[in-house]
Amino acid sequence: MAAVKLYGPLASTATSRALACLLEKQVEYQLIPVDLKKGEQKKPQFLAMQPFGQVPVLQDGALTLFESRAIVRYIAEKYAAQGTIGLLGKSLAERAVIEQWMEVESQTYNPPSSFLVFQLAFAPLWGIPQNQAEIVKNEKKFSKVLDVYEKRLSESKYLGGDEFSIADLSHLPNTEYIVKATGKSELITSRKYVNAWWEDISSRDSWKKIREMSKAGNKK
Amino acid sequence: MAAVKLYGPLASTATSRALACLLEKQVEYQLIPVDLKKGEQKKPQFLAMQPFGQVPVLQDGALTLFESRAIVRYIAEKYAAQGTIGLLGKSLAERAVIEQWMEVESQTYNPPSSFLVFQLAFAPLWGIPQNQAEIVKNEKKFSKVLDVYEKRLSESKYLGGDEFSIADLSHLPNTEYIVKATGKSELITSRKYVNAWWEDISSRDSWKKIREMSKAGNKK
Ligand SMILES: N[C@@H](CCC(=O)N[C@@H](CS)C(=O)NCC(=O)O)C(=O)O
Ligand SMILES: N[C@@H](CCC(=O)N[C@@H](CS)C(=O)NCC(=O)O)C(=O)O
Repeated sequence: MAAVKLYGPLASTATSRALACLLEKQVEYQLIPVDLKKGEQKKPQFLAMQPFGQVPVLQDGALTLFESRAIVRYIAEKYAAQGTIGLLGKSLAERAVIEQWMEVESQTYNPPSSFLVFQLAFAPLWGIPQNQAEIVKNEKKFSKVLDVYEKRLSESKYLGGDEFSIADLSHLPNTEYIVKATGKSELITSRKYVNAWWEDISSRDSWKKIREMSKAGNKK
Repeated sequence: MAAVKLYGPLASTATSRALACLLEKQVEYQLIPVDLKKGEQKKPQFLAMQPFGQVPVLQDGALTLFESRAIVRYIAEKYAAQGTIGLLGKSLAERAVIEQWMEVESQTYNPPSSFLVFQLAFAPLWGIPQNQAEIVKNEKKFSKVLDVYEKRLSESKYLGGDEFSIADLSHLPNTEYIVKATGKSELITSRKYVNAWWEDISSRDSWKKIREMSKAGNKK
């Protein structure tokens, strides 16, 4: 079987979300770099695959697919029988709860955490001025979200239930930047259950591999 | 079988998204009002079901589920064999493309359209001052999103392919308000294919029923 192609840079949270799923499911893949700073994602040949001009894009035979969380669902379903099993749950009710936490990530966890990552980790690198008032506002918002997570994770080992699922996986990229690159790691580490969950999911082989790839990439 | 319970007011876009799916799938349901102005969604008994204090919530036997798009997926899957068939596609690849457009709705269509609905339809009713600069910004953003939709819908009858799916369905609530309550209906009607798609999906029995229920509710 030809390897699937994933277009996007490793530093992109949406790309590494999709990649984490490929690694969990032991899918053969080829990672094709897209230079966001050069605006390659807005070139006609890229827009033909992703009309909004964003990474990632997955190609699997005749199928071209974008939106990282749709890619994650597709990979988990198509390769259900290999790699980590049960990423989508074992029943309709389990899948439903996993989908609930997928949506919480996308609707509620992602907006303030992405904002903090952009403002605190990327804006300084790119010489973009920071918006202090909005940083404070988003930190408060994210803190409240994490309080709900703390309660959930005190009652359930993973977000979707007893097993690691695509819901946990989808949180890896933003949380990595929050812990490593924003100076705000205490948002995670100060919360007992959130921190234990983070230690657990971020020490999976898939995520360790992505960390290694990032280090290797940064050395080049 | 006991009817499933859906908690939330009809005027809430997230609630009517879930309700539209119950109607498409001809599921017996009971709609339980939640008074958002009185803050019922922040009361302890509601927070025990939905820890973020938002509507809707679905109860189906032992399962309590929140997040409208997770509810939509669950209903479409559980009642796959009744009501409108094929809301999730007929193959893995069809489901993948439907999920892609579910994500586009949630990540890209919803933020600017929700903002416009809030600022232009609800803020005046609730005496909240409008933010003109942000309205202009979001209208531009939403316009660009709709340009991508126009192209997609010129090539494909529905977002996910040839058949109506949960991806189209998820767009109903925000688009209804944009067309009916923001004074910005030309965003939709000025685009040939978007407008034809809107006319089509909004004249389905499920959505007509929700319009009737809203009218009846407003008369009370
Ligand atoms: N909802 C999309 C978001 C994709 C996204 O925001 N990608 C960013 C990188 S993480 C990007 O392409 N940025 C460059 C640009 O928007 O021009 C997904 O999850 O795939
Ligand atoms: N992502 C959630 C959003 C839910 C949501 O925003 N609900 C609104 C009404 S449409 C709400 O409960 N607002 C009252 C509040 O936040 O206090 C979903 O899709 O279910």
